[in-house]
Amino acid sequence: MGNSFGKLFKITTFGESHGKALGVIVDGCPAGLVLDEEKIRLEMQRRKPGQSKITTQRKEEDEIQILSGTFEGKTTGTPIGILIPNADQKSKDYSHIADKFRPSHADFTYSEKYGIRDYRGGGRSSARETAARVAAGAIAKQLLDHYGVIIQAYVSQVGELKLQKNYAQLDLSKTEENIVRCPDPETAESMIALIDAVRKDRDTIGGTVTCVIKNTPVGLGEPVFDRLHAELGKAMLSINAVKGFEYGSGFEGVKMRGSEHNDAISREGGKTHTLTNHSGGIQGGISNGEDIYFNVAFKPVATIMQDQESINEAGETVVVSGKGRHDPCVVPRAVPIVEAMAALVLADYILLAKNNKL
Amino acid sequence: MGNSFGKLFKITTFGESHGKALGVIVDGCPAGLVLDEEKIRLEMQRRKPGQSKITTQRKEEDEIQILSGTFEGKTTGTPIGILIPNADQKSKDYSHIADKFRPSHADFTYSEKYGIRDYRGGGRSSARETAARVAAGAIAKQLLDHYGVIIQAYVSQVGELKLQKNYAQLDLSKTEENIVRCPDPETAESMIALIDAVRKDRDTIGGTVTCVIKNTPVGLGEPVFDRLHAELGKAMLSINAVKGFEYGSGFEGVKMRGSEHNDAISREGGKTHTLTNHSGGIQGGISNGEDIYFNVAFKPVATIMQDQESINEAGETVVVSGKGRHDPCVVPRAVPIVEAMAALVLADYILLAKNNKL
Amino acid sequence: MGNSFGKLFKITTFGESHGKALGVIVDGCPAGLVLDEEKIRLEMQRRKPGQSKITTQRKEEDEIQILSGTFEGKTTGTPIGILIPNADQKSKDYSHIADKFRPSHADFTYSEKYGIRDYRGGGRSSARETAARVAAGAIAKQLLDHYGVIIQAYVSQVGELKLQKNYAQLDLSKTEENIVRCPDPETAESMIALIDAVRKDRDTIGGTVTCVIKNTPVGLGEPVFDRLHAELGKAMLSINAVKGFEYGSGFEGVKMRGSEHNDAISREGGKTHTLTNHSGGIQGGISNGEDIYFNVAFKPVATIMQDQESINEAGETVVVSGKGRHDPCVVPRAVPIVEAMAALVLADYILLAKNNKL
Amino acid sequence: MGNSFGKLFKITTFGESHGKALGVIVDGCPAGLVLDEEKIRLEMQRRKPGQSKITTQRKEEDEIQILSGTFEGKTTGTPIGILIPNADQKSKDYSHIADKFRPSHADFTYSEKYGIRDYRGGGRSSARETAARVAAGAIAKQLLDHYGVIIQAYVSQVGELKLQKNYAQLDLSKTEENIVRCPDPETAESMIALIDAVRKDRDTIGGTVTCVIKNTPVGLGEPVFDRLHAELGKAMLSINAVKGFEYGSGFEGVKMRGSEHNDAISREGGKTHTLTNHSGGIQGGISNGEDIYFNVAFKPVATIMQDQESINEAGETVVVSGKGRHDPCVVPRAVPIVEAMAALVLADYILLAKNNKL
Repeated sequence: MGNSFGKLFKITTFGESHGKALGVIVDGCPAGLVLDEEKIRLEMQRRKPGQSKITTQRKEEDEIQILSGTFEGKTTGTPIGILIPNADQKSKDYSHIADKFRPSHADFTYSEKYGIRDYRGGGRSSARETAARVAAGAIAKQLLDHYGVIIQAYVSQVGELKLQKNYAQLDLSKTEENIVRCPDPETAESMIALIDAVRKDRDTIGGTVTCVIKNTPVGLGEPVFDRLHAELGKAMLSINAVKGFEYGSGFEGVKMRGSEHNDAISREGGKTHTLTNHSGGIQGGISNGEDIYFNVAFKPVATIMQDQESINEAGETVVVSGKGRHDPCVVPRAVPIVEAMAALVLADYILLAKNNKL
Repeated sequence: MGNSFGKLFKITTFGESHGKALGVIVDGCPAGLVLDEEKIRLEMQRRKPGQSKITTQRKEEDEIQILSGTFEGKTTGTPIGILIPNADQKSKDYSHIADKFRPSHADFTYSEKYGIRDYRGGGRSSARETAARVAAGAIAKQLLDHYGVIIQAYVSQVGELKLQKNYAQLDLSKTEENIVRCPDPETAESMIALIDAVRKDRDTIGGTVTCVIKNTPVGLGEPVFDRLHAELGKAMLSINAVKGFEYGSGFEGVKMRGSEHNDAISREGGKTHTLTNHSGGIQGGISNGEDIYFNVAFKPVATIMQDQESINEAGETVVVSGKGRHDPCVVPRAVPIVEAMAALVLADYILLAKNNKL
Repeated sequence: MGNSFGKLFKITTFGESHGKALGVIVDGCPAGLVLDEEKIRLEMQRRKPGQSKITTQRKEEDEIQILSGTFEGKTTGTPIGILIPNADQKSKDYSHIADKFRPSHADFTYSEKYGIRDYRGGGRSSARETAARVAAGAIAKQLLDHYGVIIQAYVSQVGELKLQKNYAQLDLSKTEENIVRCPDPETAESMIALIDAVRKDRDTIGGTVTCVIKNTPVGLGEPVFDRLHAELGKAMLSINAVKGFEYGSGFEGVKMRGSEHNDAISREGGKTHTLTNHSGGIQGGISNGEDIYFNVAFKPVATIMQDQESINEAGETVVVSGKGRHDPCVVPRAVPIVEAMAALVLADYILLAKNNKL
Repeated sequence: MGNSFGKLFKITTFGESHGKALGVIVDGCPAGLVLDEEKIRLEMQRRKPGQSKITTQRKEEDEIQILSGTFEGKTTGTPIGILIPNADQKSKDYSHIADKFRPSHADFTYSEKYGIRDYRGGGRSSARETAARVAAGAIAKQLLDHYGVIIQAYVSQVGELKLQKNYAQLDLSKTEENIVRCPDPETAESMIALIDAVRKDRDTIGGTVTCVIKNTPVGLGEPVFDRLHAELGKAMLSINAVKGFEYGSGFEGVKMRGSEHNDAISREGGKTHTLTNHSGGIQGGISNGEDIYFNVAFKPVATIMQDQESINEAGETVVVSGKGRHDPCVVPRAVPIVEAMAALVLADYILLAKNNKL
């Protein structure tokens, strides 16, 4: 249960961290979309491990194979099956934790829920699973290209180090210019230094990803339960290590008065606009055409290179020692994952909106 | 689209603020549950307008009628239909905004999406819709009683005024003892004073509701997409005026290091426990048996008793003046709504978990 | 569970035979549809009991109340709630079977499945539940009017008495001219006489309804599982007393050879047509623009005015004697129900088809 | 859209006839099921082409690869990904029909619906797609083994040649003893001779598969829409070439009177039974514990080795000549497909029934 996402543009994923392969089926992509495999590969590159000194040094090429759903370079309306073989399966790395519950991992909960678990690399609970999402999201992005929708995420906080500018004050085209994916070069440098220091401490640290969606058509969102931001929130909260989601004014908006917070509406050049955008581009759960923006909070990675107290499956006290190759901070690699999940939501909601009115 | 919530314990709602009635169908409640209508009425009372000086003075008795799905006081496994007639429909109050888009309301987005809208009291976009959720949630709560699950929400912030104690330091049985629903009497008094001052300013203010879920069985949650907290997040974000959701360490967790954040696991008296609970009772998207806790951010109510600039449907600049009877701050009445949505998620996930293992 | 039908044009029903009311929520009807309540009432009249000497003499006015989802005569895109109060609840009629399992009814299965059952008039298992479907179907029909789709069902068989002409040889406008709803006046007369004779025998008899759908757009159907005819089949099989469904050549097609059965394709006047239509308007699960036609088999009504052997809830042998007012043959009243379910499928699939291609 | 089946035990398939691979994801299989891959392979063998002189001579080994969802021989509760590589892709066989619409195939409807189609071997509309269903169904069967549910299908009719005995009069263990899969040896011989004669005529012929399900627990089925037989009907109608479905008395039941048709209920040895079983093991859409049985009608295969008139994509009249290697009659290979789809429905409904009552 729970491995499908979306209503009309729907994905279903499978695969464990150290199994034979990951994969995803994209069902519901309209026919006739020219599918650029290279663009999918580029997104996979952005997410893949071993890409820089501040990410895990594990090597996975994350090559994708498109098995169905396209013909002569275009989507055919039939399900698109994508395979991502697992190349670098160092399963032995994990034998030492086979019967131990790593603190703040999903070992205990998977064991209790299912009575059995693939302990190698966290099995299905590994963030490796998000590779399948990025592949599917790269298809969603190409569908969104047709509608002019642009999705840009970036790292806005690492530990206490918080970007002091909001998205409108930044040049988001610079996000990919540094390995931490923060569009402000100076802050980026500090973030990289911080992550590197944390790594040397054999520790990990949390961070925040901000995502901006531009050119959203007015009218996306399906109240009352499937509000656009509710689905975006669920999408983000379904990503490994995410602890919070806020859009528009978010938790800061709590402090404001209605007279400050309300976005006055005006009309310019035949288009309706709001003078401010505390609403974050969504009102009543429906996009109003303004920029959508939201923050996603990621906790520090649970695997640390330090001894920690825990128990094993027999209930005995044990020491868990981090081994293997892990990320000291998840946010640089989370940027394309956040974008992918946002793209999946937007693609789905654009298809849903076709039936708004007669 | 979008008016159903839940997979096995599923609700579907209907109804506009000033239509004939609201209602909800609860499908999937197991048979044999003794249904106490009085408990449903009590929840309705907690949400209803006009309950105190700091809420809207609009009067709605919010009487419920159970039309089906029960027999001789018990649920029968068939859908439970509930009707909530709209008693106090002062539709004339709204004629002055029939063709105007109120700032930060859903007027513009509903108009654009559907090409038509019931402007009376916001129609379907009104928070009045949540009455149906509270009725359904009150049934979910009675199902949860059988499993010993306890859900308690309270107001933890109004404007800048933030409760300085966390849930474990509070006596949550005191929540209902004051009209703002904050379990700390002193803070409650300050919050009431603040809301009252804001009301006199003809303004509104935001706030935060914190929710705690105790005695959750281990093993609830359906990764990878339907993680327990992802569904809780969606549930909360689907409530009117909500701008953010965080669970466990939340946005503060971003600042922490893994070595601080990780919850060490120990075993006492035959039960597995964590020594800290930054995880918020959920690991890998699955409940671990510890308390689940989360915060929900509510923006200031958009209707203020002040003149605001906006446009009408013709695109002309107009002044919108607040009339009618509105809440200066939504959080006191949001407490039972947050609990209701949490109950719906938990009930659903308990049913889903029946098939975890053979 | 199981009380919703449809993906985008989705209905959810509730209500027991002798409860306070039946009802339905229609979610997903596009906004802007002019809704003619009179047309809904007309469909309700076609289904209602007591309409002729060959139907049950029970009286139910089946008045509908539209509670939401429309504004100034048009749909608003929000859920349409419809209530059908139960007027004629002669619950005492059923006390004699309170603990008995009537043969070929759902008494035993509901009792076993749910451990409790509303025995009055069969509770939720009563065909009275289809009133809600007819109301919803009448809205679907009005949506289909916009697309020119026409749905016409009629009685094609009662007992051994089978209409010898196929739909193309009949004038379907005559269906409503007689009480059995068979468009061939002579056969109709024989059918009426047969049903009347069966009624006098205190017995019941089965029958077949044929349904024809004209002007279906090419391209409806969602292979591989949600083929158009698979959904039509499910829709029909979900109606009380239905035992079989066949479309196009159906069970007779089994006997044919490919060379006879294949529908040669030709092009005339800019339109692609098939010279024969054994396919029944659907190929590969997708409509091809030809007439869709199918047969639905209804068993004889289980309630007969005769003594039958059975057991009670204690497992003791008892005699069940038919009382109350029941239909000797269900097909005359089933005609509008078949049309309603067909309309719901077609409306849903037209909305789904909006995203076939880019 | 439309490539998923099931609610809790849910499958999603992908793959074209001549693409790189077919595949299926099984989501929702409870953890802890010992999975015997050999049993899956056996089912694949029963469906695979080239198995006898009366099936297509095309060779596909239909080797399966399980990519995820199992660990040390057991299911883990995570999605089971299965890959079936396409070995024998003679795509050149199809170049002659690249722009032609084969009569009674899905060429025209796929072209119109999607604006593009993979013409090689029918692409997604090929019955080759059912290989993925058989693989998934073989897992469902292993789950059903735990509940003692037994599913047995067989060929009951080929052309006019109809088995004169009902299932209770046959020894179903003999079904696999002949290549046509008819448990009556004499009838089997006649059927084989008939199919062979048809094949020599370069023609095809239809047939019927009967399926029997024994030991079903009482209480499966989710009225009102998701009645057990409605879902079985949809499952069968979703199989290529199926034109009809009937269960229990089926279309013959139409001719009967209630007094004959009703199944008297009795109690023997502590179990409730019906003395006859016209109901086909399902009453009110819920299993009553008696044998479930149903018939599935298959039309003659559309590909015949004869010239047929048709048109091409440009609308010009063309002659379509059958080439390639095709089945003269689909039913022998359809037997395991019918069983697979029945198993998927039963597995799903057993999981759903866990929440019937408190």
